[in-house]
Amino acid sequence: MSDELNIALLGTKFMGRAHSNAWLSVAKFFDLDLHPTMHTVVGRNEQELAAFARRWGWREHTSDWRQAVTDDRVHLVDIGTPNNVHAEQAIAALEAGKHVACEKPLANTLAAAEAMVEAASTSEGKTFVWFNYRRVPAVAMAHKLVRQGALGTIYHARAAYLQSWGGPDTPLLWRFDGDVAGSGAHGDLNAHIVDAIRFVTGEEITAIEGAVEETFITERQVLDGGSGGEIAGAGSSTSGRMGTSTVDDAVAFLARLSGGGIASFEASRVATGYHNANRFEIHGEKGALRFDFERMNELDYYNPGDGPTAGWRTIDVTRGAEHPFVEAWWPDSHGLGYEHSFVNQAADIIAMIAGASPVVPMPDFADALRTQRVLDAAIEAARRRAPIPIDPV
Amino acid sequence: MSDELNIALLGTKFMGRAHSNAWLSVAKFFDLDLHPTMHTVVGRNEQELAAFARRWGWREHTSDWRQAVTDDRVHLVDIGTPNNVHAEQAIAALEAGKHVACEKPLANTLAAAEAMVEAASTSEGKTFVWFNYRRVPAVAMAHKLVRQGALGTIYHARAAYLQSWGGPDTPLLWRFDGDVAGSGAHGDLNAHIVDAIRFVTGEEITAIEGAVEETFITERQVLDGGSGGEIAGAGSSTSGRMGTSTVDDAVAFLARLSGGGIASFEASRVATGYHNANRFEIHGEKGALRFDFERMNELDYYNPGDGPTAGWRTIDVTRGAEHPFVEAWWPDSHGLGYEHSFVNQAADIIAMIAGASPVVPMPDFADALRTQRVLDAAIEAARRRAPIPIDPV
Amino acid sequence: MSDELNIALLGTKFMGRAHSNAWLSVAKFFDLDLHPTMHTVVGRNEQELAAFARRWGWREHTSDWRQAVTDDRVHLVDIGTPNNVHAEQAIAALEAGKHVACEKPLANTLAAAEAMVEAASTSEGKTFVWFNYRRVPAVAMAHKLVRQGALGTIYHARAAYLQSWGGPDTPLLWRFDGDVAGSGAHGDLNAHIVDAIRFVTGEEITAIEGAVEETFITERQVLDGGSGGEIAGAGSSTSGRMGTSTVDDAVAFLARLSGGGIASFEASRVATGYHNANRFEIHGEKGALRFDFERMNELDYYNPGDGPTAGWRTIDVTRGAEHPFVEAWWPDSHGLGYEHSFVNQAADIIAMIAGASPVVPMPDFADALRTQRVLDAAIEAARRRAPIPIDPV
Amino acid sequence: MSDELNIALLGTKFMGRAHSNAWLSVAKFFDLDLHPTMHTVVGRNEQELAAFARRWGWREHTSDWRQAVTDDRVHLVDIGTPNNVHAEQAIAALEAGKHVACEKPLANTLAAAEAMVEAASTSEGKTFVWFNYRRVPAVAMAHKLVRQGALGTIYHARAAYLQSWGGPDTPLLWRFDGDVAGSGAHGDLNAHIVDAIRFVTGEEITAIEGAVEETFITERQVLDGGSGGEIAGAGSSTSGRMGTSTVDDAVAFLARLSGGGIASFEASRVATGYHNANRFEIHGEKGALRFDFERMNELDYYNPGDGPTAGWRTIDVTRGAEHPFVEAWWPDSHGLGYEHSFVNQAADIIAMIAGASPVVPMPDFADALRTQRVLDAAIEAARRRAPIPIDPV
Repeated sequence: MSDELNIALLGTKFMGRAHSNAWLSVAKFFDLDLHPTMHTVVGRNEQELAAFARRWGWREHTSDWRQAVTDDRVHLVDIGTPNNVHAEQAIAALEAGKHVACEKPLANTLAAAEAMVEAASTSEGKTFVWFNYRRVPAVAMAHKLVRQGALGTIYHARAAYLQSWGGPDTPLLWRFDGDVAGSGAHGDLNAHIVDAIRFVTGEEITAIEGAVEETFITERQVLDGGSGGEIAGAGSSTSGRMGTSTVDDAVAFLARLSGGGIASFEASRVATGYHNANRFEIHGEKGALRFDFERMNELDYYNPGDGPTAGWRTIDVTRGAEHPFVEAWWPDSHGLGYEHSFVNQAADIIAMIAGASPVVPMPDFADALRTQRVLDAAIEAARRRAPIPIDPV
Repeated sequence: MSDELNIALLGTKFMGRAHSNAWLSVAKFFDLDLHPTMHTVVGRNEQELAAFARRWGWREHTSDWRQAVTDDRVHLVDIGTPNNVHAEQAIAALEAGKHVACEKPLANTLAAAEAMVEAASTSEGKTFVWFNYRRVPAVAMAHKLVRQGALGTIYHARAAYLQSWGGPDTPLLWRFDGDVAGSGAHGDLNAHIVDAIRFVTGEEITAIEGAVEETFITERQVLDGGSGGEIAGAGSSTSGRMGTSTVDDAVAFLARLSGGGIASFEASRVATGYHNANRFEIHGEKGALRFDFERMNELDYYNPGDGPTAGWRTIDVTRGAEHPFVEAWWPDSHGLGYEHSFVNQAADIIAMIAGASPVVPMPDFADALRTQRVLDAAIEAARRRAPIPIDPV
Repeated sequence: MSDELNIALLGTKFMGRAHSNAWLSVAKFFDLDLHPTMHTVVGRNEQELAAFARRWGWREHTSDWRQAVTDDRVHLVDIGTPNNVHAEQAIAALEAGKHVACEKPLANTLAAAEAMVEAASTSEGKTFVWFNYRRVPAVAMAHKLVRQGALGTIYHARAAYLQSWGGPDTPLLWRFDGDVAGSGAHGDLNAHIVDAIRFVTGEEITAIEGAVEETFITERQVLDGGSGGEIAGAGSSTSGRMGTSTVDDAVAFLARLSGGGIASFEASRVATGYHNANRFEIHGEKGALRFDFERMNELDYYNPGDGPTAGWRTIDVTRGAEHPFVEAWWPDSHGLGYEHSFVNQAADIIAMIAGASPVVPMPDFADALRTQRVLDAAIEAARRRAPIPIDPV
Repeated sequence: MSDELNIALLGTKFMGRAHSNAWLSVAKFFDLDLHPTMHTVVGRNEQELAAFARRWGWREHTSDWRQAVTDDRVHLVDIGTPNNVHAEQAIAALEAGKHVACEKPLANTLAAAEAMVEAASTSEGKTFVWFNYRRVPAVAMAHKLVRQGALGTIYHARAAYLQSWGGPDTPLLWRFDGDVAGSGAHGDLNAHIVDAIRFVTGEEITAIEGAVEETFITERQVLDGGSGGEIAGAGSSTSGRMGTSTVDDAVAFLARLSGGGIASFEASRVATGYHNANRFEIHGEKGALRFDFERMNELDYYNPGDGPTAGWRTIDVTRGAEHPFVEAWWPDSHGLGYEHSFVNQAADIIAMIAGASPVVPMPDFADALRTQRVLDAAIEAARRRAPIPIDPV
């Protein structure tokens, strides 16, 4: 392989844009051993696709994903398509010997995810999963602090990913269709926080101790033109008919950590007041950490060893000499945004393909399967439920 | 009854001080229909008791609680003793026709609590339970806002009471002795937040869906002189021997609300970084509320109807003309402290004995029994556990 | 002198209540060498006075202040009257050999304040000024940290005391009458923050470098019954006539500190959004401190020496073993309120009369005169103004 | 002119990168009427320049700025060079009929700035100044709210731009050389907040009422190779010699607003604890606004009309349908970073060149001159100083 890294991107929606931006920007900010080339973009709608390719600077475009992932000129296949096609596309790419970077969650079923891991195990290609929040500097810093022993034995991990766009006025978008989306808040949001707790603590989740799954709003307005719209659905017109949501609006569960601690996870699309509150608190014998993506440039750290001046330290994780990934960007304390996490991950993907180490551990397919197993077991727990009723009198 | 209200207080420790202060201060700040008289204080250690009575201005003192609660001159018996004697003392007082104000939790067993409710149902005395946090102005305000419809249908209630004084260096205080304390964080802390969610939402908890109970630190240093010490144990000397903690350090559980929402509760004594984080978040279709006792003079409120300027409103609940209980105290925005919640409750207890309405609903024994049933069911759920293990590979 | 300390209080309004509460509570929470006795209270309205005395437990009451301050049985005269009578009352008390605790500001004119210092210098009585915020635990802690060297050379002090009750709808209360009040926001609020910066930094203010004084609302509605009302004026009825405010609504000024740093001060009654934001930020070579009375139980501290985990530490200054004054109150992290600062000061006043040292330095008349000189110089600077106009084109 | 907009960029340091990124990204995220082409980049060091051009995708590069700004193919000259060459370069570009976008502050002297405005008045080119913070969505939103009447009469504006990289360990960078930098914190930081207050309030600053200028650290270590380094100076080696800083470390001043309000401004490089705290608070009769760039995705708003639920609303200004500039980026609540403000400004510059209106008002040279006059008058006030000393006794 020359020092060129030719990329084929599958998908042109929200993640298609986020990944295109990452491949466009990464070589501007990071010094790389391989030069990423935006080679081919794959989409279904030819006309939109051409415009997308032109706007973002993809050299070629095609609606034939299979051709793209087997193209000899392509080195890395980047999958940003719906969850239910990840497996087929990733396996084909791996069989063609490509490196594969896949959006989370790994697949829409556990079986599909296992097949992907199997395919990865026999391919020369390396695999990567876009759990992008690992590379928000504050989260990467949390990982490093735990590894350095800042927390000691971990007692509690408390994670929630709270959004509120899914109220009764939101129409029946594709995200409410279980056949397409796989699940609701659970697969979309709990996936991120399960990965985050595994990444930051360095521990595994060993058991689910209880779970609740709930669809608060079962009937929603059907969109004109079907369930195609993106999250916001702003300006979408509805048909006047009602349809049934077949996914969860919220899932919460309790779990055990391999180090002896207990953990809770909660995902919701109806947590009024929160828009993107991807957050966690971790308490250990020697310290505690706290993060909320709504203030993504901050990490809170508590060190009881500070004695009379102990207090939650609000660290602005924006100082290049001290905090991961930051040096590539701007002078100190010029905050980063959402998409920087993708650019940071792109830099680490390129580094790993070139044989170097990532700044912080990168999830491959096998790693992402572990997260998927947790999500699966949580749903099983929710459905097996044996509630203890409380006497109302 | 004249306009004098003679009070007998049982207990001279932490709660004995908090209640003494309440009875001392209430008539200074509130205009009352009955005048509270600090009549008799009851304790076990005669010498300490005399000093306590002198310091706080109790007219009489005795180590014979039974005599005090049946004394003809006494109108109100205030119970601030350990949980395992609440029932006997309260029932005796009720049988003597006294009004009874009892510390939370109502009793150390469900059976004892039921007996107390039974006694209350046949007594002329009124009953009150010191769930004092209801009368923190911010919490009372939250209750009022929900009652006014500010939240609409409630989807989520998320409550936690997080402390951190129970680490491995803390010796084997009486609070770690299950025979004395009944339970650990669960009875001490979850009791408060279960009451808070019931109070603020106006809903009941109908079922427990899963629970975890954990004792992280099982062996602790035995104190010289046994397990007598107060929370901090500062300056206590230890014996060099180790003993076994027989209570939980943390209990978390998931539950259903009567209005269709889901709820989570968590209590911990090892949540490093938090000292008294008695907090909740409640999300409804039309709004959300957030409270943390560590910032007790603030209530956060989110109104999606605010449109482009919607944001969490940090209300400083300190304006006399607008916020419950505040007018009695100081000019606007001169913040209150912990003990004011007891004084506020004392004012409402006196008002109710005089036949008036309290500012916000007051828990009686029957109401507190409902909270106790929830705590009991949660522990049952934790012990019935059927975890779903997760394949480690 | 026996171990009894007989107190005569002058004034029954806001400060009369705050001081009564302090003398009532101090012996309940603190172990004292002298026992404070609420001996005599002085007020102008006989009927209100009797009710006040009964409510708070003052043994005697009189409308003749001169008799009270010369009464042989009285040891300490506590002055909570309007600023324009402080001097006469304090001097009379000092001449009678009493200890005197006087509300801030020391006097309504610099000449009066100087006369008070002169009287103090020749009296056997000790003097104290109620700059109560020094004894908010967070502020006392800030003082201690600076003294321990936590800040090093101080570059900046930035203080503001921001309220918002003085908008155009507020009627012409006595606080807007310059003859009675002396000044507006300046004397009332800047007095506190000038004292705070002097206390916390341990430095003096050596020069005023510029100042602005402004009365935004010059005409206000006259109250029925004249300008008698308290701050809130809630429920007051107005006469329909307009009258002229003769005090400032806001005063800001820039100053030099004796250690080479620069400082800014700002007081306002029309800072919409703030109710009692008595706050400061102090930046030194080695650290920084930040306080806001609206979160009075917190002190923020920044230590650059924390390296990659440096961040503002939000210290909840509520841990008895670690933070000043807290041990007297409740277990850790049971927050204090406004009036506790007065009780804390009462404890230190009693300690000093008994010959002991206060927990942190106590301002006497001479010390308060230094604060008053700063306020006076600031107004002089504002009135000498020589603005540099800016070409509008 | 075709729909191509050819850009020549002058400068390749911090601002060269920020502007390059803006021109690279703007057409990816915004739908534009003209297509920006990264035509020519100008720098002094040929070798670095070639690498810079290659990295960022500039078609051509040259060290001859005069040739670039007069090149017939160039439509827009973008100036990101040191302040002392802005005037010469901008005037040459305007004389050649180019549009000119110039970094702030407009020039290093008032005379130079006036000459630039003069040149602009006779050129066909449009002018723009990179006061990029106007296009942080929260700041743009603040402007819109004021224009909609959310504040009413403005009483107070309180602005500060606080950094802390300039302590005694920081060597003698070019930013401490008055001949190169013009001034220190004042020109660098106060320029931004004077523009911000003018922009958000819509008012002019009419007079300076007092000012302080201070150089706390006068002697600094000389860098090996002279004063060339960038802000951080990380890893720079020093020569062992000391040199003299000839710029201010901090400047504070008080001012009057055209609407009758008063304002304060403060810039510092030694405000330990703050890294990029570009912040303001504005209080009006009907409401208040608060912003801090360290939490750039939030705007705080207080509406007294909210009555009992009035509180500071923390608005996350990240909702595309509701907040300026956001829709171009990601779904709701995926926060933006520092450089997005430049991209937003690039979009508005292109819109204006194409004849459309900007989202919020854009500063041209004449507008930036008004900011410069304020800065100049503030320094004049600081140097004219007539301090009022305070008697130390």
